[in-house]
Amino acid sequence: MHSALRFIALDWGSTRLRAYCCELTPQQELVLLAQASGPGVVKIVGTFSDVLQQVIAPFVKQYGELPIFMAGQISSSIGWFETPYLNCPVTPQAILHSVCERISGQQSLYIMSGLRYQNPSGDNDTMRGEELQLLGLLRRYPQYLHGQHLVCLPGTHCKWVLLDNGYVSWFKSAITGELFDVLLQHSILLPKPATLYTDDWATFTAGCQRALTFPNESIVHALFSVRTKQLFDAYTASNARSYLSGLLIGADVGSILHDTKVESLPTGSIILIGSGALQQAYATALTQANQQSVLITEQEVVLAGFAAVANQTLLPLSCQA
Amino acid sequence: MHSALRFIALDWGSTRLRAYCCELTPQQELVLLAQASGPGVVKIVGTFSDVLQQVIAPFVKQYGELPIFMAGQISSSIGWFETPYLNCPVTPQAILHSVCERISGQQSLYIMSGLRYQNPSGDNDTMRGEELQLLGLLRRYPQYLHGQHLVCLPGTHCKWVLLDNGYVSWFKSAITGELFDVLLQHSILLPKPATLYTDDWATFTAGCQRALTFPNESIVHALFSVRTKQLFDAYTASNARSYLSGLLIGADVGSILHDTKVESLPTGSIILIGSGALQQAYATALTQANQQSVLITEQEVVLAGFAAVANQTLLPLSCQA
Repeated sequence: MHSALRFIALDWGSTRLRAYCCELTPQQELVLLAQASGPGVVKIVGTFSDVLQQVIAPFVKQYGELPIFMAGQISSSIGWFETPYLNCPVTPQAILHSVCERISGQQSLYIMSGLRYQNPSGDNDTMRGEELQLLGLLRRYPQYLHGQHLVCLPGTHCKWVLLDNGYVSWFKSAITGELFDVLLQHSILLPKPATLYTDDWATFTAGCQRALTFPNESIVHALFSVRTKQLFDAYTASNARSYLSGLLIGADVGSILHDTKVESLPTGSIILIGSGALQQAYATALTQANQQSVLITEQEVVLAGFAAVANQTLLPLSCQA
Repeated sequence: MHSALRFIALDWGSTRLRAYCCELTPQQELVLLAQASGPGVVKIVGTFSDVLQQVIAPFVKQYGELPIFMAGQISSSIGWFETPYLNCPVTPQAILHSVCERISGQQSLYIMSGLRYQNPSGDNDTMRGEELQLLGLLRRYPQYLHGQHLVCLPGTHCKWVLLDNGYVSWFKSAITGELFDVLLQHSILLPKPATLYTDDWATFTAGCQRALTFPNESIVHALFSVRTKQLFDAYTASNARSYLSGLLIGADVGSILHDTKVESLPTGSIILIGSGALQQAYATALTQANQQSVLITEQEVVLAGFAAVANQTLLPLSCQA
């Protein structure tokens, strides 16, 4: 019989670092002891090591040195320690066993590998971090091990994933979140001063509707309306920001639903993993496109994924001890 | 008989100010005496007035105070003096007579009005600056006063314009240039350090081809390949930059050629007004889409437009003198 396992789990993406101090009970229940946050891979100032030590300091102070697990862009070519990609189709077991050990100072870091999908025309797609969520999803909801399921994981780079009898068999990335961010901050579509925006669902829906109604209109054309809505339709900066979000998410959803791969799937709900306003935005867009979705909380599947990986990685070690 | 008219013409767009010191001979020939450049509307530091005085100082030193004409974003809501929009359809004569006089210090400034087009679904589109080029085009090439002609004016915001028996009857904006600029500078699709890029026409063509081959794929999906091409296909930063340009311009061209308005036009060459690599890029994309184009130099029609406006505005004044 094993005692409780404690570990630190880092979901370290492009724009955000989410750190969790976890305990896995002998009954395989995950207890979240503490959490913290920090800057994403493209936002850090200083070294990755310094940021890590600073973010986990409260955990270490209270619980001592703990094994550290990481997933996300931190293991990419623009991250800290680069790990390989597993080629799709891939099983949850392969994801589970893809953990690489890296040493920073005296500290062992256990880092997930990413996934790579090459489509028939030779183009590649990649993910880092979402594979952990997919693993967690399949652990928490084993019913998705059977049949075909389309999963949507919104974020800086939204991922659309096909689970085919438990295999991750196909996926496609959209830079929707990043595009929204750079246009909001750097384009002349919206006023420059860092306004405090509020979400406006009416203009979000209007943007979404436009993108879904005219699927053949590239957003390079549709986006100019973000400016003209402010000039002629009395849109405030907040209205325009939500309209921009609607245009981009509507284009993302509309384009994926017309993808030949997705069109060939049997009718069913899309599994929408996320949180807060972004998850709500995708759910709204899917509803507008007459597509049902099942909402699952991102943190739930992130932690379930880390629990599976920690259990797999650390239990043999503690057995040896 | 009139003596030569001298004036300063400012093509003051979002990203660039191009200043020309001009002389219009009694035979209506335009002589370019000198030229200069400066920052665009969204790039200026300090006041518009200071930038203006600094840029035209060499002209004033050599030729004394001269009447000043302006076109472009300088007359927009994010510019210096806002002028009205003329509603389309609009004639070249109306554009010619749209000049507004504004006073800065002791100086008269003659500023063009913009154009506005409202499509049947109520969405508005606008242009500022391109109306002057259209006026210049119709002055220099009066054959385009007859029949229907699609005109492409690439730039920060590319404009696609329908000339219908001399009327500007329809137009559509694409934020292609701005999108390229913000993604290049601020996205994680390309390496951050300000690399010195070189144009690469092979990867430009590859990007273009992808966008044209998959017209239903939104660029929010296609853009992620800018990153994976660097990860798996050995694209350098320069390759990837040109590929990004190809994806965006291909999406712009592909979407416009599938626009119902454009599809209803008789077959014919597109009039492509521009200069340098950008004009070449659009010509390449149009060729890939099996569409012929006629290339006309931007500066030629800008100056022809200003010549027409200066002649119209100043000749009555010089007659009175």
